[in-house]
Amino acid sequence: VKKSDVVKLILKNKYLGTPLKQTGVAFAPTNIALCKYWGKRDNDLNLPVTSSLSIALGKKGAKVNFQVINETHDLITLNGEVLDVASAFAQRLVTFLNLFRLKQGPYFSIIIESNIPIAAGLASSACGFASVVLALNQVFGWNLTVTELSILARLGSGSACRSLWQGFVEWNAGQRADGMDSYGQPLNFNWPDFCIGLLVMSEKEKHLSSREAMLRTVNHSALYSAWPAKVTTDLVKLKTALSEKDFTLLGETSESNAMSMHATMLSAWPPISYALPETVMIMQKIWKLRSEGLPLYFTQDAGPNLKLLFLEAHLLQVKAEFSHIEIVKPFAHI
Amino acid sequence: VKKSDVVKLILKNKYLGTPLKQTGVAFAPTNIALCKYWGKRDNDLNLPVTSSLSIALGKKGAKVNFQVINETHDLITLNGEVLDVASAFAQRLVTFLNLFRLKQGPYFSIIIESNIPIAAGLASSACGFASVVLALNQVFGWNLTVTELSILARLGSGSACRSLWQGFVEWNAGQRADGMDSYGQPLNFNWPDFCIGLLVMSEKEKHLSSREAMLRTVNHSALYSAWPAKVTTDLVKLKTALSEKDFTLLGETSESNAMSMHATMLSAWPPISYALPETVMIMQKIWKLRSEGLPLYFTQDAGPNLKLLFLEAHLLQVKAEFSHIEIVKPFAHI
Repeated sequence: VKKSDVVKLILKNKYLGTPLKQTGVAFAPTNIALCKYWGKRDNDLNLPVTSSLSIALGKKGAKVNFQVINETHDLITLNGEVLDVASAFAQRLVTFLNLFRLKQGPYFSIIIESNIPIAAGLASSACGFASVVLALNQVFGWNLTVTELSILARLGSGSACRSLWQGFVEWNAGQRADGMDSYGQPLNFNWPDFCIGLLVMSEKEKHLSSREAMLRTVNHSALYSAWPAKVTTDLVKLKTALSEKDFTLLGETSESNAMSMHATMLSAWPPISYALPETVMIMQKIWKLRSEGLPLYFTQDAGPNLKLLFLEAHLLQVKAEFSHIEIVKPFAHI
Repeated sequence: VKKSDVVKLILKNKYLGTPLKQTGVAFAPTNIALCKYWGKRDNDLNLPVTSSLSIALGKKGAKVNFQVINETHDLITLNGEVLDVASAFAQRLVTFLNLFRLKQGPYFSIIIESNIPIAAGLASSACGFASVVLALNQVFGWNLTVTELSILARLGSGSACRSLWQGFVEWNAGQRADGMDSYGQPLNFNWPDFCIGLLVMSEKEKHLSSREAMLRTVNHSALYSAWPAKVTTDLVKLKTALSEKDFTLLGETSESNAMSMHATMLSAWPPISYALPETVMIMQKIWKLRSEGLPLYFTQDAGPNLKLLFLEAHLLQVKAEFSHIEIVKPFAHI
């Protein structure tokens, strides 16, 4: 099964149609996994080995503006800068867009504005591809369901399939070879007190993409074999934590899941470590604060930055301890 | 099976005898595991889940001087300082010595001189208990085989059973409940070019003992289940590397084994990390140097310090890169 087969399955008679509108504008939030997506069972379709669970970051994400242009190539602007066609990101986006058009077009001016650092482990590609799919749905007038959009977003970037909603989202791994049962689904849990603190230690692009790191881990880590069972356990714990608003269980499970994901990478060969010295310093600070009674946890993705998890009752204390923190209240605007 | 049962099995009619000599003096080298001992199948007898393989550090180790004294308690001096009877180390040593004597004694003045930092992940307890057992063998005139001494040393500290020899040593896990098949054995591989570089980042006592860390990992790490198979593979690779003098295979296997051990700790709850920010910095430096062509690897034990592995041909380059390194040539004096 190839990506184009999946696109045909979803778009049916609308496959490779002509634009209905000249423009499409969309926003998608970035999402942070509390139970990680780590390892693919299909590298082309971005089908995961396990399910995963995330929280969307409200207004943090990507906004795209599509405009059909009378050209033979796309013109991509990212945060005010025109991207070189040869750049990795431009190539990835163009390859994705080619799934939906013929050689003769249509081509677009695509203006992307992201309020999170690109490729620094803050899921920039997740919100990027989710917003692109939303905009394409407008331009082509597909009128797809959000489930179908989630599947299309996954073809661009796995975790993008979780960025179609605010709040907690589960991505069911599914079992089908064509991935038609592998998409995001919103979980109906509101938690207004829930806070996330972004601690950006480096905005530099990561030295190794998540895609490469995942592949190396699955193929060359002796400990990866124990990861799927860990995820199964953690997903049950997280859903219990959400339904009972048990923050300790949520925090412990999320942090343990993230540490275990990084553990599978350390045991790969060559070893993969996204930690900077500052990452270690901050982790130790968090563990110290927690041992002193502060209910503070963290998660870490494929990058050096940490995302703190805490409740609003401890917001002031967290702010006092981490001067450069950016606070996100995922449910504040819902 | 208790420790005292094992002592009886080994000492037989010599069990709880009186001293033959008034003094005993012994040295044992510390050892660094290239394939780690991580996890016990018997917490009292220090019986391991898996076998392990180490290299002894030549003149780096502990020297003990036992002297029978006319007292009702031991007098322990460590590196020139008299130890408080209530200190953790003194209690551990006295409890061990009690296995070999009655309430009425004999008691000893024990002078320990160690030329490695204590409890900083440099296997101070390994050489400590190995040298103590060697000295006791003299004082009591047991005339035991080195295999029997290895079993007794294990009762004091698991990895001590590998500190009875110079060079490469394998500790066979064994299967018996009484551990009579679980002891060190020297491997007959000389490798005069083989160098070890000690990079001590902290001489402070570790925040969590190996014993506690191991216990928590075995009981509370989802990834530990994959560790025994990793060890089986790595032991085969290491012995191939030794017999073929394949330094790349030795280095890769040792580093991967150490990273995987730490990975099992990170996935424990609460997570266990022995890394300091400097540890991460140095790891990244090693990986960079290696990517530039220097055949340099490392291993790390339950502490922040790293032990570099390289061949004599690269000694000058390694010294130039790491100004505070201490070089050990394990085969220089054999």
